[in-house]
Amino acid sequence: MSELSSYVIPHGFRFGAAKAGLKASGRTDFALIVADAPASAAAAFTSNRVVAAPLIVGKEHLRATGGKVRVVAINAGNANCAAGQAGLDAARAVCAAAAHAFGCRKEEVFPSSTGVIGAPLPAEKLIEVLPDLAASIGAESDRFMEAAEAILTTDTVEKTAFAHIEVAATAAPGESNGLPRQVRFAAFGKGSGMIHPQLAPHATMLIYILTDAAIEPADLDGYLQPAIEVSFNRISVDGDTSTNDTVLLLASGASGVTIGAGDSAFAAALNQVCASLAKQVVADGEGVTHVVELRIHSAVSDQDALRVAKAIAHSPLVKTAWAGCDPNWGRLAAAIGYSGAQIDPERIDIRFGSLPVCENGARAPEFDEAAAHTYLEQPEYSISIHLHQGAGCCVFWTTDLTAQYIHINADYST
Amino acid sequence: MSELSSYVIPHGFRFGAAKAGLKASGRTDFALIVADAPASAAAAFTSNRVVAAPLIVGKEHLRATGGKVRVVAINAGNANCAAGQAGLDAARAVCAAAAHAFGCRKEEVFPSSTGVIGAPLPAEKLIEVLPDLAASIGAESDRFMEAAEAILTTDTVEKTAFAHIEVAATAAPGESNGLPRQVRFAAFGKGSGMIHPQLAPHATMLIYILTDAAIEPADLDGYLQPAIEVSFNRISVDGDTSTNDTVLLLASGASGVTIGAGDSAFAAALNQVCASLAKQVVADGEGVTHVVELRIHSAVSDQDALRVAKAIAHSPLVKTAWAGCDPNWGRLAAAIGYSGAQIDPERIDIRFGSLPVCENGARAPEFDEAAAHTYLEQPEYSISIHLHQGAGCCVFWTTDLTAQYIHINADYST
Repeated sequence: MSELSSYVIPHGFRFGAAKAGLKASGRTDFALIVADAPASAAAAFTSNRVVAAPLIVGKEHLRATGGKVRVVAINAGNANCAAGQAGLDAARAVCAAAAHAFGCRKEEVFPSSTGVIGAPLPAEKLIEVLPDLAASIGAESDRFMEAAEAILTTDTVEKTAFAHIEVAATAAPGESNGLPRQVRFAAFGKGSGMIHPQLAPHATMLIYILTDAAIEPADLDGYLQPAIEVSFNRISVDGDTSTNDTVLLLASGASGVTIGAGDSAFAAALNQVCASLAKQVVADGEGVTHVVELRIHSAVSDQDALRVAKAIAHSPLVKTAWAGCDPNWGRLAAAIGYSGAQIDPERIDIRFGSLPVCENGARAPEFDEAAAHTYLEQPEYSISIHLHQGAGCCVFWTTDLTAQYIHINADYST
Repeated sequence: MSELSSYVIPHGFRFGAAKAGLKASGRTDFALIVADAPASAAAAFTSNRVVAAPLIVGKEHLRATGGKVRVVAINAGNANCAAGQAGLDAARAVCAAAAHAFGCRKEEVFPSSTGVIGAPLPAEKLIEVLPDLAASIGAESDRFMEAAEAILTTDTVEKTAFAHIEVAATAAPGESNGLPRQVRFAAFGKGSGMIHPQLAPHATMLIYILTDAAIEPADLDGYLQPAIEVSFNRISVDGDTSTNDTVLLLASGASGVTIGAGDSAFAAALNQVCASLAKQVVADGEGVTHVVELRIHSAVSDQDALRVAKAIAHSPLVKTAWAGCDPNWGRLAAAIGYSGAQIDPERIDIRFGSLPVCENGARAPEFDEAAAHTYLEQPEYSISIHLHQGAGCCVFWTTDLTAQYIHINADYST
């Protein structure tokens, strides 16, 4: 990440991080994203019915402003979830303090939290460090990376993604024709355990995507939801859908380039950023040693393909076989069988990469156990499944389940 | 088990076990249950759409005979699942050989298999040892226990249950009035991993329940299905529903006591046997160090209560917290939230035994972390959840998730 230079950060945003004392490790745990002017916002939140206080407050604020955000205030070390009225009060107190620090309406502040569920957020710790933090923010890439680091919990690496598109300038007054102008994307996020985001328009995955395009909130939302559907909603580490999952997309407009609906280059760049971050979250999953791409083909519908992918992704027996590089494809067949998808057991084909392992529901004649085992030793690989039922398909990213996952989550101190 | 005496084994059955060479350990792996005369049978099978060959053949045979069984032929070490036509041929060959050995119709033989999925069953190994095995069967409790041992795979202990009821004799011709007669129940089973039986009208859990009551197959089925619903269908070790789950109830009639529909004593004894075996399967779950009884109360429906129980029982984060005796009830709240059940996040109450931990969706005022931790150190305990939505409820038994489970299932040799 040392090669990152400021030229990739979208115009119109500043960043910062501080130590508020929420992480037992003593690391930075409070990050700010500050837009120079109110940015257009689109967001997606967990479909868990137990919803953390900052998500409730954040939704209220987006409604109140019609989708405009000046400040994003993110803490790690406490999820501020299942904390009753005290949790809501704490989230609102942080927003009010940030609004005061930056001279904006409190509804223009978007709060986020991640960490342990069930303990009220000590808002006073955040509020205490806020003045110094507000004074230290900057648009440099170093500030950006500090924010990306502060929001991590059990994550082992920062998760960032960047993209840009060149847009031919239109003949607007005062603009020289034909000169391409640039729209930048920069995003950071966190997520390692309790990862099975089901964002509903659907993470404790927290994702912040920034662009300097000029775009209306409704149009922004029109780009965000489809991008989420094929990225963050297609990953699972442990099948646990968090109470705090949030994806926030902000557009500052500072590039001077206006983007309307249906811009394929903008959509492609956003999709690329979302897919990159989604895969980074999976790859840094708690205790993960193998990342598996599941390609489900010829299901009766896309929804059925997704049922098959999720049953496999959530099967402890499949995930432990992957941890052992064990080509025990029978466990895959069992998960397909209980997925609820429409299948014909005698028409299931399974391949590890290009290696046939199961054909017509039974061991493939060419099955080579040693070759299959070697294939599964790779840190990343692909498994494809053909159901021969219809035209439904999906791509899904998931992980193995290792003893390290257990150690991380069974340690009585979290 | 050394105290077990023959007087508890239902009349009319004989048992035996042999080494057919299917288990790498070299232990006994082939068991027989033989009824002296065709026994009434009721059965339930996995709802997995990938179904092992012996289940397909067993269903065909029960249909062909109208629910009559002479011989149950059970092997461990190979599930005979996802093995195509070769698997069906192998199951039928074993049945034919058993029918020959005992002089019955092949349709009166009920086959069962458990072990690795995806490799054809080497029927010839079973057929080779069958004559000696057939010659060695007996009605003694030792033979019963040998059969119970032979069917084990990753199980660490035999699973058996016994019951009896006294039935006042009716004034049938040739019977003296008023003398109570006894109906016996004896059952054995196996199951440790891939345990989330969803028996439809619903195990690789294999359960064999024997009684010497005289009862018609249809009446027998009328007792079995409700008993399964509140026992085997209310347990989960890992959420993986097997391709081979089978519960078989046989009634020999050898007690001379006829049981019709609606006999509450018979139902109670059967329920007791099923509940006992279901809990034994959970307690011997792979790597399990804690058995947890979930009591879900005041859901909008029994089905919703079951959704909550299953979401909790299948959450890796909840199960790892249990492994660590960690009173992290926030993980329970998250699982309740994504269960799909109708809930009000602000009306959820959670108790560990009698210890309040969560009230109205937030940390209970009386929450005592040290006491909660101590409570969770017990090998068996109860967690109750009140949703305050309606009259729906359920009781469900599940387990923690430990590094030992990973080691058992990630070992590339299974």
